[in-house]
Amino acid sequence: MQKSASASSLGPGGIDLSQIFFKPTQNTSTPSPTKRHTKISVIGAGNVGMAIAQTILTQDLADELALVDAKADKLRGEMLDLQHAAAFLPRTRILASTDYSATDGSDLCIVTAGARQNPGESRLNLLQRNVEMFQGIIPPLARSSPDTILMIVSNPVDVLTYVAWKLSGFPSNRVIGSGTNLDSSRFRFLIADHLDVNAQDVQAYIVGEHGDSSVALWSSISVGGVPVLSFLEKQQIPYEKEALERIHKAVVESADEVISLKGYTSWAIGYSAANLARSLLRDQRKIHPVSVLANGFYGIAGDVFLSLPALLGRGGVLGVTNVHLTDEEAQRLRNSARTISEVQSQLGL
Amino acid sequence: MQKSASASSLGPGGIDLSQIFFKPTQNTSTPSPTKRHTKISVIGAGNVGMAIAQTILTQDLADELALVDAKADKLRGEMLDLQHAAAFLPRTRILASTDYSATDGSDLCIVTAGARQNPGESRLNLLQRNVEMFQGIIPPLARSSPDTILMIVSNPVDVLTYVAWKLSGFPSNRVIGSGTNLDSSRFRFLIADHLDVNAQDVQAYIVGEHGDSSVALWSSISVGGVPVLSFLEKQQIPYEKEALERIHKAVVESADEVISLKGYTSWAIGYSAANLARSLLRDQRKIHPVSVLANGFYGIAGDVFLSLPALLGRGGVLGVTNVHLTDEEAQRLRNSARTISEVQSQLGL
Amino acid sequence: MQKSASASSLGPGGIDLSQIFFKPTQNTSTPSPTKRHTKISVIGAGNVGMAIAQTILTQDLADELALVDAKADKLRGEMLDLQHAAAFLPRTRILASTDYSATDGSDLCIVTAGARQNPGESRLNLLQRNVEMFQGIIPPLARSSPDTILMIVSNPVDVLTYVAWKLSGFPSNRVIGSGTNLDSSRFRFLIADHLDVNAQDVQAYIVGEHGDSSVALWSSISVGGVPVLSFLEKQQIPYEKEALERIHKAVVESADEVISLKGYTSWAIGYSAANLARSLLRDQRKIHPVSVLANGFYGIAGDVFLSLPALLGRGGVLGVTNVHLTDEEAQRLRNSARTISEVQSQLGL
Amino acid sequence: MQKSASASSLGPGGIDLSQIFFKPTQNTSTPSPTKRHTKISVIGAGNVGMAIAQTILTQDLADELALVDAKADKLRGEMLDLQHAAAFLPRTRILASTDYSATDGSDLCIVTAGARQNPGESRLNLLQRNVEMFQGIIPPLARSSPDTILMIVSNPVDVLTYVAWKLSGFPSNRVIGSGTNLDSSRFRFLIADHLDVNAQDVQAYIVGEHGDSSVALWSSISVGGVPVLSFLEKQQIPYEKEALERIHKAVVESADEVISLKGYTSWAIGYSAANLARSLLRDQRKIHPVSVLANGFYGIAGDVFLSLPALLGRGGVLGVTNVHLTDEEAQRLRNSARTISEVQSQLGL
Repeated sequence: MQKSASASSLGPGGIDLSQIFFKPTQNTSTPSPTKRHTKISVIGAGNVGMAIAQTILTQDLADELALVDAKADKLRGEMLDLQHAAAFLPRTRILASTDYSATDGSDLCIVTAGARQNPGESRLNLLQRNVEMFQGIIPPLARSSPDTILMIVSNPVDVLTYVAWKLSGFPSNRVIGSGTNLDSSRFRFLIADHLDVNAQDVQAYIVGEHGDSSVALWSSISVGGVPVLSFLEKQQIPYEKEALERIHKAVVESADEVISLKGYTSWAIGYSAANLARSLLRDQRKIHPVSVLANGFYGIAGDVFLSLPALLGRGGVLGVTNVHLTDEEAQRLRNSARTISEVQSQLGL
Repeated sequence: MQKSASASSLGPGGIDLSQIFFKPTQNTSTPSPTKRHTKISVIGAGNVGMAIAQTILTQDLADELALVDAKADKLRGEMLDLQHAAAFLPRTRILASTDYSATDGSDLCIVTAGARQNPGESRLNLLQRNVEMFQGIIPPLARSSPDTILMIVSNPVDVLTYVAWKLSGFPSNRVIGSGTNLDSSRFRFLIADHLDVNAQDVQAYIVGEHGDSSVALWSSISVGGVPVLSFLEKQQIPYEKEALERIHKAVVESADEVISLKGYTSWAIGYSAANLARSLLRDQRKIHPVSVLANGFYGIAGDVFLSLPALLGRGGVLGVTNVHLTDEEAQRLRNSARTISEVQSQLGL
Repeated sequence: MQKSASASSLGPGGIDLSQIFFKPTQNTSTPSPTKRHTKISVIGAGNVGMAIAQTILTQDLADELALVDAKADKLRGEMLDLQHAAAFLPRTRILASTDYSATDGSDLCIVTAGARQNPGESRLNLLQRNVEMFQGIIPPLARSSPDTILMIVSNPVDVLTYVAWKLSGFPSNRVIGSGTNLDSSRFRFLIADHLDVNAQDVQAYIVGEHGDSSVALWSSISVGGVPVLSFLEKQQIPYEKEALERIHKAVVESADEVISLKGYTSWAIGYSAANLARSLLRDQRKIHPVSVLANGFYGIAGDVFLSLPALLGRGGVLGVTNVHLTDEEAQRLRNSARTISEVQSQLGL
Repeated sequence: MQKSASASSLGPGGIDLSQIFFKPTQNTSTPSPTKRHTKISVIGAGNVGMAIAQTILTQDLADELALVDAKADKLRGEMLDLQHAAAFLPRTRILASTDYSATDGSDLCIVTAGARQNPGESRLNLLQRNVEMFQGIIPPLARSSPDTILMIVSNPVDVLTYVAWKLSGFPSNRVIGSGTNLDSSRFRFLIADHLDVNAQDVQAYIVGEHGDSSVALWSSISVGGVPVLSFLEKQQIPYEKEALERIHKAVVESADEVISLKGYTSWAIGYSAANLARSLLRDQRKIHPVSVLANGFYGIAGDVFLSLPALLGRGGVLGVTNVHLTDEEAQRLRNSARTISEVQSQLGL
């Protein structure tokens, strides 16, 4: 299954319209077709993968978009559904295939595929099955696009980003996990909604392991240039540490809340991944909390991926912000790193 | 259920951050809150409704977006999932409620709700159930937003647009059906894909009744200013009328193809509705084939809604293009109108 | 002089094409034409005014754009030059007139008109001439659009914003000066360029009087969530206070540098004003350092306008950020306020 | 003169902030810096060149923008004025230099430089001086960016596009002139304004030589899918051929009208060039009337460049629309071609 409509000279209905165009007859040449043409591939055409693909399309981030999934029918249906909007959008070539060759020459590959937990299955067992799935995904992706940036969205995102890094053989600056980029947006929304201001004026990072043990960096949260903690202190507004914990907890639980209400999350992770894609491919050099190789930062030892505020551009991860952590925050990061490390050691990679 | 987070002075976690802002102290006044603020409501939070809502959000077409559905949990989940992306998007207020008061003061209401066909149920019976559903939707919508434009997406779109017109008591210029706007995009994609050109350079209208009996206006199809039919004649390129029929048939069947493959259509109708919303609310005065009151055009008699190339702007339907129809095309339009008329007469409105 | 082309039924060349559209024949009504239609007026069609107008047009911020200037020819040339791009842009109605009635019903009026300094003329004399000019501009603007927000760009911006406030009789939340919004962008560019990061990840406010005596709020400058001053201290990176002053000085002088090189500034002030227009008219509730009535903030007494980080939305100035100032910074603000107050007392308003 | 601010480790004011970022320490690699990074160069920083550069920046069409002009001061002023808007725009690297090396690796070079007519100077003499100027521009451009597309905006655009083609040694598909793309937009505006519809719904080509002898293709003009000429005939609306000529004349004269009113044209040509840049660099495969090598089309003989409806994409000119010309229209094209040919033969290239 390649492109939906035939590229043959006989068009729809069997009528050849190709002579509507004269072809240039003199000496012509075409710039190399792979040059300066932005291609994004999305692996997994489920709710998350399709929300990402559609947002990328709406935001006009790619010249070519390739979808890969094991379910051929579903995949073709999604491709056609996007293609049918051609008259409403800037032109983007949309491909879909069960074969990874459709991803050839990608600039960015976003992996959303993942196994679902079976009843009674241990987390380690589930992870092991995901690793097996990645063994069928990452190596062919890396072969098809040896220069691509890999973005892992599948959960558990930190360990699977490590797995993708190992399986790809890529330098670490070209492998990231979507990590806590979305958690941080949820955090910013919660504060912005309380104050009725634009969430883009709220600076707030959640870092560390995506999930329950993530760390909210209270000391770097600010609203419109006002650091929140020092503001509370200067204004002598009393607060208890438990109150901060409750806010963090509300953020962490909000993903589960959406899942319990609608069955899955899709839109917000779609916007989050498209937001990262833009910073990477348009070389925006913006800072995002995403899962990166954390070895050596904040006393973390070992090859673990954790979300840290990373500077992202066309070269992938360009740097990691040297943001201030309290001793407790740093300790929690290191604890997460150790836990992840132990899990990884059981994967046999 | 209103806004997700409390607007109280006690913020997330119970900490009051409101003093981060001084309030202006001198004589101030606020422009009327309902003035020059664009609000869109989407009724029905299923796949179609949410694809529309999300595309409207991504394309920044509204300052306020309200979702209404009967399923409170699903609805709240969808609202939260959109709200969580706040940091990635321009600020838009997002509401959701099972109560139509959430739609108060809308500029555009898009209705996607509809009953599904039960096994063995006749089309007329299904339609009757949809009419009943609309009796619970349209009057409260019209009360909440007496100046709104109504856009009907639910199927059968032409009859239900008539039903919405009747139930709302609105002037006909403020009631449209999404009609063949999407069919026309599919048509343009098919031709553009064959020629490898931008679908926006293909002009092609499918008009009439949305579905099998729609009419492809071959005589007005052009590619980059080249009218296709007269081009074929001038170039003496032979074609058979059956070939044209096959292309039209491929368009008509493409919706069913997507449904058979992925179970429903969503993305393309989302883009189509957002495209119409933009022309309407930003007063773009663009021409779209949508379902409008067709009485008096092309010899059509009676209060039926059919898709015709309509000029859309802030005032709704501003005019209908006097496009050339062959006698056969006009006859087919009139036949569709008669069939629809007969169905409508059985609805007891 | 109103719209360039006639709206008469006799079109270009005298051919009437109006019958290309059928008009709806049945009971129709149009939503009130002034409702939910965004109109921006720009007063002064010089380099600054036109850069603002063109950026607003490119960024699709208005449904209607009115230009007013005393020079009828220049004005009509600018209007036509913008109108000729119609096929490349979303549809926007563009008007131009020497008469303020063209601005009727504006949501935002941006004033860029101002007298130029004559050789040997004192600053006070120049200011007095500008006040006289504003006496011919502001009252008719306020009459044509009693609910508009006024944005003053003309220099000296702080005093002239006060003058506009007085002459309009508007509540203070609807009168702002572009103030140090652009200075702050220059500041952010300088730091971002040094670090090779996106300027949007640099938070930096310059507040106070636009010009030499403005105040850089070092204590609230951060890069990617890292507060710069406390970072330097924690990292024990030595710096001298003079170094900070040099950076601020470079920002202040950069406007003069551009003027000395190209004769005037235009592009950056165009983007700055369009940026403010967006936050105001699309109710973005974002924080911008702009000139607002500062009475009562930071110990400032008297009706003076100074740039402070203000929360802007559809209602104009919604609040002022309670940002931390050192004693010295606050003192400098109060000194500026006093100087401005004294100048204002000589204006006889 | 290269980038405005130093890239040294000592930042503004002499403070080194670079340690705000950790650098990745493990094995990292960067994708080739020239790969998939879109660079546009604009030659000539006058009113036209800067309107183009600013529109490209606002529309976010390039990752890197280089300006070249002989006047170093003016050039640096324009660069700084654009750079100062960094906080309001997506990140774009902006360079400026009197040296063509700043254009290295461009994807698109837009040439706006040109000599002005001296009093009493013959057109041929002026052209000869422009050819000399191009001899200093085109060869270094072609050396710096051997794969670039060249877009010529300088007038007389058709002859100078030929000159650029000859001097560059490029294949003809990579050399275009902005030609009648803007004239066609003016034509569409005039008709759209008469009918009060969106100019994007008016299809209208002006082709041939840019200027008085251009040809309006009446037979392919349509509004919303209604071909204008056949509509007039079918509706038996009388019109005289002179009326059509008057419309064309109004279009041709509108550039002169703007020049007589404001002294030059800038905004519309800025939008026109940015519109072409988008189709080319984002591979939009859209049809634009631009100056292309016309040898062999419509009986035109010889190496002349004339505007024809061309299909533009990443490969430059991908085809020319086989639009219907009346015998008279084709004859006028051939006459223009002959005149241009004769002029070219006197240039000694």
